Amino acid sequence: MERLSKISLSEKFASFDDRWAPKILTTVDDFAIKIVKLEGEFVGHSHAEADEVFFVIAGGIRMRYRMDEAEHEVAFGPGELLRVPRGVEHMPVAEAGTELLLFERSDLPNTGDLEANERTVAPVRI
Amino acid sequence: MERLSKISLSEKFASFDDRWAPKILTTVDDFAIKIVKLEGEFVGHSHAEADEVFFVIAGGIRMRYRMDEAEHEVAFGPGELLRVPRGVEHMPVAEAGTELLLFERSDLPNTGDLEANERTVAPVRI
Repeated sequence: MERLSKISLSEKFASFDDRWAPKILTTVDDFAIKIVKLEGEFVGHSHAEADEVFFVIAGGIRMRYRMDEAEHEVAFGPGELLRVPRGVEHMPVAEAGTELLLFERSDLPNTGDLEANERTVAPVRI
Repeated sequence: MERLSKISLSEKFASFDDRWAPKILTTVDDFAIKIVKLEGEFVGHSHAEADEVFFVIAGGIRMRYRMDEAEHEVAFGPGELLRVPRGVEHMPVAEAGTELLLFERSDLPNTGDLEANERTVAPVRI
């Protein structure tokens, strides 16, 4: 079995520059810690069967979401986390330079239950 | 449904002071992000059926582990993660003031597959 080796978050973030393309940093059973760089608006989407946790490392996110037939927004920044429960439609809007850690099912599509579109990408190992 | 609210990692770490007692910060399906303060040596243990990821926020950990019938050690600090795959016996040794995030199954016992002992605690919500 391969020896255990540590993973440096800053080295991994320095190794890519594309936006909205989650990378699998490491896995825990069928779940993953993914990292992603964000900037600007994403598409609103939801995951009917999966929760998602967002953890901002740098920058900031305004998360727009729908609940009780109304629009809401919550902003969070470095050192802050947000849990989006299954079924809640959400749309992240990110400051330039935002670095994010995602904790979710390994195979969770980034555009949720939307039909695959130009923003849909499969996560890759980094 | 309750509105989404952000979680501040530093506020949560400031809200308790006991060591080796994981708190559930938030959940993702059947998994959890737990936080814990560590200091000194823990007991060697393994989880036959569960991976575990350690992410150091402050301080540092030397993780001793057994593999291929030998003892090994890997040290990691703030901003660094370590994945311990299922079945690998490991024993964290932590600097004073270590703050750690854990990603693992919500119900994973902190002392793994050992019989419950004086270091065994059930995680609580924080």
